[in-house]
Amino acid sequence: MTAVQPGIEFWFEFASTYSYVGAMRIEDECARAGVALRWRPFLLGPIFTEQLGIQDSPFNVQPVRGRYMWRDLERLCRKHGLEWRKPSTFPRRSILAARVACALEADPRQGDCIRALFRANFAEDRDIDEPSVVAAALRACGADAEAVLARASSPEAKAALRANTERARASGIFGAPNCLVGSELFFGQDRIGDALAWATSSPAGK
Amino acid sequence: MTAVQPGIEFWFEFASTYSYVGAMRIEDECARAGVALRWRPFLLGPIFTEQLGIQDSPFNVQPVRGRYMWRDLERLCRKHGLEWRKPSTFPRRSILAARVACALEADPRQGDCIRALFRANFAEDRDIDEPSVVAAALRACGADAEAVLARASSPEAKAALRANTERARASGIFGAPNCLVGSELFFGQDRIGDALAWATSSPAGK
Repeated sequence: MTAVQPGIEFWFEFASTYSYVGAMRIEDECARAGVALRWRPFLLGPIFTEQLGIQDSPFNVQPVRGRYMWRDLERLCRKHGLEWRKPSTFPRRSILAARVACALEADPRQGDCIRALFRANFAEDRDIDEPSVVAAALRACGADAEAVLARASSPEAKAALRANTERARASGIFGAPNCLVGSELFFGQDRIGDALAWATSSPAGK
Repeated sequence: MTAVQPGIEFWFEFASTYSYVGAMRIEDECARAGVALRWRPFLLGPIFTEQLGIQDSPFNVQPVRGRYMWRDLERLCRKHGLEWRKPSTFPRRSILAARVACALEADPRQGDCIRALFRANFAEDRDIDEPSVVAAALRACGADAEAVLARASSPEAKAALRANTERARASGIFGAPNCLVGSELFFGQDRIGDALAWATSSPAGK
C-alpha cells in the first residue's frame, strides 16, 4: 500500500511570463516525481487591484523590476529550452484563455492546450484574447475548437474561473505561478522543486 | 591556463530575511564551484523609497505577501539547516551592520562576521543596530570589535556604503539578495545556482 500523496495544484495566469516558464515544465516534473497535477487557472488582475491598488502588471508599474524580468525571461527560456518572443502587448487579456482552461477540466488534452495557449502568447506573440488564435491552438492539440470555445463561454466555465480566483485569494496567493500542496503555498517558477519535495516527503520531514 | 572567471558579487541587506538565507550559504557554494566571491552590503531602504514610494518593507506594506514570506522563511531555514527565530522587530535598522561589513572589506574574517551579524538578527532576535550586539558578534569571530566599530564609523566606511547603495541602484537592483556576475543580475536566494552556472559557463553557453 502506498501513502496517499496530496499532489500539486499549479495556480497560473496566462498573462504571466513566469507562469509560462513554470507551465511548460510542471507536467513533466510532476510525472517524473510521481506526483498528481491539477491545473488551476485564475486571474491575477483582481488580486493586484485588491492588494496593490493597481490596474496593470507590477512589472509595468515598477520599470526597474520590469527590465530585470524581461532579461530574466530570456535566460530562463534558454535554460529550460523554451521558445521565447517578447510579447508586443503585456500583459495580454487572459480571461478567454483562462475560461478555456476551465472548460477543459478533466479533459486529457487540458495540459497540451494550456501549453499551446502559453506558446501563442510568449513564443508566437499572438493575441490570446482573439477566439481565432485560441481556436488554432486548440485545433493543433486535436481538440474540437468550436465545442471548447462554446463551453468556455458557458455560465459554468465563467463561474469556475471566478471560483478559482476566489480560492486563489483565500489561499494567500499574491502572484503567479504557484504550487499549492495541501495548504502549503510555494510562489514562483523557481520553487517547483521545493513543492515537489514537499509533496513527496514524509510528514515527519515537514 | 585557465580562463578568468568574473566571480560573483553578492549584494545583500542585513535587514532582509531572504538575504539571511542566501548569505549563510553563498561562500560555501562559491567555494564548491571555484568561483570568487565579493560581499556587497547595501541599503535597500533608499531604493524602496525611490522605486516604490514606501518607508517600510514591502512585506509589511503588503500583508498577504508578508504572511507568505514568514512561512516561507521557516521552510527555507529548515531546508538549508539554518537556525531561525522570527525577529520581534522587522525590518531592523541595518546601517551599522552594513558599515561594519564595509569596514571589513579585504579582511579574512569578513564572511564570518557577516554571518554572525545575520544570525544575531534572524536566529537570536537581537538588535543589530546596538553597538554592543555588533561587538559581541565581531568578538565571537575573533575580530578586534572596538577597532572594527571605530573603522565602521569613519568617513571612509560611510562613503563606501553610500557608494555601494548607489552602485546597487545603477545595477538595476530592486530587492535583496542578488548575485551579480559581470553585468548579469540574478535576484533572489533561489537563483544562486543560476548565477554560479552563469559564472562558470563558457561565453558560448550564454
